[in-house]
Amino acid sequence: MQRPSRWGATVVAAIATPFEADLSPSRPRLAHHARWLLANGCDGLVLFGSTGESASLSVAERRRVLDELVADGIPARSLLVGTGCCSLPETLELSRDAIEHGCQGVLVHPPFFFKGVADAGVSAFYSALIDRLGDSRLRLYLYHFPQTVGVGVSADIAEALFERYPGTIAGYKDSSGDFEHTCAALDRLPSLEVFVSTEAKLLPFLARGGAGCVSATANVQPGAVRRLLEGRGTAVEAERQALVAQVRTALEGPQVVSRVKALLAEIHGDPSWYRLRPPLIDLTAADTGQLLARIGRPSAAFAGLTPDR
Amino acid sequence: MQRPSRWGATVVAAIATPFEADLSPSRPRLAHHARWLLANGCDGLVLFGSTGESASLSVAERRRVLDELVADGIPARSLLVGTGCCSLPETLELSRDAIEHGCQGVLVHPPFFFKGVADAGVSAFYSALIDRLGDSRLRLYLYHFPQTVGVGVSADIAEALFERYPGTIAGYKDSSGDFEHTCAALDRLPSLEVFVSTEAKLLPFLARGGAGCVSATANVQPGAVRRLLEGRGTAVEAERQALVAQVRTALEGPQVVSRVKALLAEIHGDPSWYRLRPPLIDLTAADTGQLLARIGRPSAAFAGLTPDR
Repeated sequence: MQRPSRWGATVVAAIATPFEADLSPSRPRLAHHARWLLANGCDGLVLFGSTGESASLSVAERRRVLDELVADGIPARSLLVGTGCCSLPETLELSRDAIEHGCQGVLVHPPFFFKGVADAGVSAFYSALIDRLGDSRLRLYLYHFPQTVGVGVSADIAEALFERYPGTIAGYKDSSGDFEHTCAALDRLPSLEVFVSTEAKLLPFLARGGAGCVSATANVQPGAVRRLLEGRGTAVEAERQALVAQVRTALEGPQVVSRVKALLAEIHGDPSWYRLRPPLIDLTAADTGQLLARIGRPSAAFAGLTPDR
Repeated sequence: MQRPSRWGATVVAAIATPFEADLSPSRPRLAHHARWLLANGCDGLVLFGSTGESASLSVAERRRVLDELVADGIPARSLLVGTGCCSLPETLELSRDAIEHGCQGVLVHPPFFFKGVADAGVSAFYSALIDRLGDSRLRLYLYHFPQTVGVGVSADIAEALFERYPGTIAGYKDSSGDFEHTCAALDRLPSLEVFVSTEAKLLPFLARGGAGCVSATANVQPGAVRRLLEGRGTAVEAERQALVAQVRTALEGPQVVSRVKALLAEIHGDPSWYRLRPPLIDLTAADTGQLLARIGRPSAAFAGLTPDR
């Protein structure tokens, strides 16, 4: 049975970051997209997850974008802020800032330059972050994404950190893509809000006790995920499950950020959404056509994508 | 035959970064170690390579440390500065700063958060860096270290960048640990200064046309590497080669930074050199004893390490 998150969020999108022509973050487009997500099925947002190209933004940009997003009316309580950097001082700076804004929490992956580091080194990083912040308002979500980050946060590490900092370690996001791993983490971490990375597994994960999903692809089908949730246990569940999973499957892979942004260009009728910062590469309109064909009309229609526009 | 670097550097140490007890960079120890390296066999230094735990330092710290090191009398012309960050704005900021200081050049690996990125994305990052800097003084050294960085700079990429920016792309450092790859890169890039990452291959690499080595382990045996170079083609060459290689082999591996720093604690008689920032972990004095045993007395003596002190 679902163990709901303390902040009531079940469907969370890892919001993509739109850019202007000079590749600076686009303030009006980000606020517009955040409002659209919250009005169309999301309960919360991860700002500066992998999908948000967080690593491609400077610390100064990340601080400014959060300031502006909150000033533009997006409730800080709906935001988990990705604050993980390779350096402790920068992770501290961004985390302090998120706390001062009253954000729901911070989502932190381990430092990701060195590979093959010991679990003790990963734990030492999180401990140093918590000790140096010294702020009882900190709610820390551990971010396990070993394929991309290169360094994971095992359930062992999460459990030991929770025992040491029970009021601070709030959750665990598993982007491993390994559902068995996510379920095992859920069983090991009964006091944490555990989030799976794919809406395609949302219903079975909630049934196992999960808190929800934090998903890249929820950027493009928030309403479909919400309708999936609403249809849980009814005659439409299996059909909706298949429709949502089809979109997810078509988008997954190393190009997921490019693909999400290409579809956001369609959804918002705004080609500037195609832009990514290097080293990621923009899709072309032709790629988008192929992507929509792979998604297919029924899933596209259910997601509110409009391939015929 | 050696193609010497334009700045005359053959033996280059990727200098380690010492920390105070609060893990802030130690200004006096860094300046002391830099002077010691340049007085004892090194022709140049890489500041903020992997060995310098560059990724564990904030951008502000990296700027301050460079300012202070130059103010403390280390010639900027002896420094290649690692300025690679995941974000373009921060890479630009650090590179501008290195140019303004009159440093020899900048050493830049690709952005390292996203994995499996296309070569075109890596090239786009370097092109954006060069175009946006727009400074003819820029001398850019490409840094290929795929095992740790997670994203490589192939010789194909390097060649294409050199063709596009012939006055700017100055060199290629290959830390792949694959000597055949380094030699192949050397053959493909006849106009670049190519550096191998290990002093154990320095002589054969110079014979093939290499410019020199940029090495983590040169931190602890700069004099030995210099004497190896001086003994080239004489009766002592094979013996010196074996002595230097023995130190290198004992230090290599995922713990190389911790091991280098443990030996620097011995060399400088200063236990504060043991300190690393998380996620890397300090060695213990007992580990250092084992390390010195693995190096053995002849190599330790040739390197100037003093296990009996």
